[in-house]
Amino acid sequence: MSTLVSTPSPVQQASSPSVATPLLAECEFIAGGITAPAGFKAGGIHAGLKKRKKDLTLLCSEGLAHTAAVFTTNIVKAAPITWSQQALQAQRSSVKAIIINSGNANACTGPQGMIHAQQMAEATAAALQCQPQEVLVSSTGVIGVPLPIDTILTHMPALVQSLGTDADAGLAAAEGIMTTDTCVKQTAVQVEIGGKTVTIGAMAKGSGMIHPNMATMLAFITTDADVSPEILQIALRESVDESYHMISVDGDTSTNDMVVLMANGQAGNPTITSRTDANYEIFRQALNAVNRNLAETIAKDGEGATKFLTANVTSAGSKSQAKALAKAIVSSTLVKAAFYGADANWGRIISSMGATGVPFEPGKVSLSLVSEAGAILMLEKGEPLPFDEDYGRKVLEAHDIEIRVELHAGASSATAWGCDLTHDYVSINSSYRS
Amino acid sequence: MSTLVSTPSPVQQASSPSVATPLLAECEFIAGGITAPAGFKAGGIHAGLKKRKKDLTLLCSEGLAHTAAVFTTNIVKAAPITWSQQALQAQRSSVKAIIINSGNANACTGPQGMIHAQQMAEATAAALQCQPQEVLVSSTGVIGVPLPIDTILTHMPALVQSLGTDADAGLAAAEGIMTTDTCVKQTAVQVEIGGKTVTIGAMAKGSGMIHPNMATMLAFITTDADVSPEILQIALRESVDESYHMISVDGDTSTNDMVVLMANGQAGNPTITSRTDANYEIFRQALNAVNRNLAETIAKDGEGATKFLTANVTSAGSKSQAKALAKAIVSSTLVKAAFYGADANWGRIISSMGATGVPFEPGKVSLSLVSEAGAILMLEKGEPLPFDEDYGRKVLEAHDIEIRVELHAGASSATAWGCDLTHDYVSINSSYRS
Repeated sequence: MSTLVSTPSPVQQASSPSVATPLLAECEFIAGGITAPAGFKAGGIHAGLKKRKKDLTLLCSEGLAHTAAVFTTNIVKAAPITWSQQALQAQRSSVKAIIINSGNANACTGPQGMIHAQQMAEATAAALQCQPQEVLVSSTGVIGVPLPIDTILTHMPALVQSLGTDADAGLAAAEGIMTTDTCVKQTAVQVEIGGKTVTIGAMAKGSGMIHPNMATMLAFITTDADVSPEILQIALRESVDESYHMISVDGDTSTNDMVVLMANGQAGNPTITSRTDANYEIFRQALNAVNRNLAETIAKDGEGATKFLTANVTSAGSKSQAKALAKAIVSSTLVKAAFYGADANWGRIISSMGATGVPFEPGKVSLSLVSEAGAILMLEKGEPLPFDEDYGRKVLEAHDIEIRVELHAGASSATAWGCDLTHDYVSINSSYRS
Repeated sequence: MSTLVSTPSPVQQASSPSVATPLLAECEFIAGGITAPAGFKAGGIHAGLKKRKKDLTLLCSEGLAHTAAVFTTNIVKAAPITWSQQALQAQRSSVKAIIINSGNANACTGPQGMIHAQQMAEATAAALQCQPQEVLVSSTGVIGVPLPIDTILTHMPALVQSLGTDADAGLAAAEGIMTTDTCVKQTAVQVEIGGKTVTIGAMAKGSGMIHPNMATMLAFITTDADVSPEILQIALRESVDESYHMISVDGDTSTNDMVVLMANGQAGNPTITSRTDANYEIFRQALNAVNRNLAETIAKDGEGATKFLTANVTSAGSKSQAKALAKAIVSSTLVKAAFYGADANWGRIISSMGATGVPFEPGKVSLSLVSEAGAILMLEKGEPLPFDEDYGRKVLEAHDIEIRVELHAGASSATAWGCDLTHDYVSINSSYRS
């Protein structure tokens, strides 16, 4: 736990110029991913769970790191989820490493599944000279097939060998967690907290974007910020709600979903121990920047996607209303299919909102579709407006499309992200195992 | 209301041999649809809302009929839904006719929409010499485009001309309500109640089967049974829950969904006025037979479908648990896509169940896939069983596939129906308006 101790001097706290009015603008995107913050090593290799691509990743902190996590709410939990939940509890939210394999979910694999998850943790602990419960385990891939544990165990030396603190090592780690993803998903930001430069890095893997309830979403975030375990957990939960949960349907998660945030305190900032601490807001905004960036990337890389959809619901009566409606729009298969066909079928958009059961006044709704090719106001306070079909098609043939919905009911807003439903989605998902 | 009066003699009630132990076997499927029961006329024509196919349907009872209805729960309700709800209330659930158009949903059409719905009712009332509020209105098709009301009004004489009591007239009516349906959906049954032959006829239109929340589901049921309005409403609600709602996700309905049941009492059976009346159970089972038959047909004709899926969840702890899990299976896009590819990916099935949040014990679940080509037990009380991939593919290449899930938790069961997710679904729904 020694790496986490860095109680700040009063001078450091007082010297922070941004305590009163934290601004997101202070947070700057930088190159790299999970190895960008000080004190983290990572690596990724091809062990043989997948045919050719990297399929085994290791992430570790120099010492124990405060670790927050959000796990799937699926009743059917994969063995590595259970292992990691127990380990975090036993360790009181301080762990050292995470081993992740792709190609096999180790879910619905009976009692053997737990043994295999434990073996992954034990082999990692032996290699890193730490305790097994200081190692979290994560898996993604096909469900119900026994994990080829020997393949993983025999490749432990090579995996540990691949560990590094540079950007290449972080990239290899991000590659090792991919399944049907077509691009690597990683990002990093820097922000000044209490006169110290704090770095947050992250990697993620995407999911099928029609019904995200069934495809695994994983994200691993590292930071050298000094944050108490309780506050770290609150910050992660809040940030997940505004990022990954906005490309998904609430509560609908796969057997293996997992978002983990490790904070090792090496930046030396004044420890953030309260939500009322002004530095908390700075940290939270930087964390949001990382997670929203990855969430957008996941949505853009939806299976078979040809278009990126952003639903912005504004002037809502409450945050929860705005969120539910924005999510409903990007979750509707008929809306998604219409955008694939560049079809300005706004009726499906408003019907998807109505189907949520969340009350709103249809007669007050304004709705526009916006892209780099132009904007069409299709519905103004409940009244459909005529529009030129050719112009509409031109606007919708762009890759990035924003759906703007104004409810004229209040001052809340929310953003959700999605993609279109395509022939390729069906192709990918009708032969996933082959 | 005179056509509804047919208070039975005590002799008739006593002569019924099936009062004590009603059996579904007594109910027999017969040819025809909504014109099969006595005292109903129907017709359908091409008015011009669609390019070539029939798009305007009229259904009417000789006199006022007790009428039960279940409407969409969507916050955004089409004008004809509002009209029909108000008419039923004003008429205390006794109406004479229903006019239905396809090709345009008259939803999100502003104040003009209500005027158009009323004009449809008024024109029908004038032609049938009844009051406008004795006419329900139903529409299905594209949302947000003004209804071509003149096209409908100028074709009223031809529509009334098409009315008939024979099977051809019933068929024409069923054709007039279709949108992307590839086959007509109608059925009829006969059952003896209190010594009288009661007939129930019905027609329906299907819906996109991936996310049924967005595509309109309509069903119209006629019967010459004598049932009080209150009991008719209860019977319809119960039957809808075990039929149409089992091909859909609860509460997720389109702007235009509507199921209507008209009972004119001409069969002369003892009036059914209570749920504890033994004749109620006979009527309910016959009504269920009709509605489950149409629900299956709708599922089989899902947009672009190549396979028909039946999920049977048995030995559940409760009816609601069984229903939620059965529906989750047939609603999962990843499950649907896997069956399209004849991929025995049972992990997606159990994950879709888990994502509902409905508690069950994964370690007790048995799961088999069954078709005319054979059966594969894939999971036995939580333990995955090895199976031959080639054999699995053969079983899944059949058109009709049953997913059998045993929870080993109790004595309840439920059935849900669905279809696979295909390339054609995407094609149909990415260019629906063109």
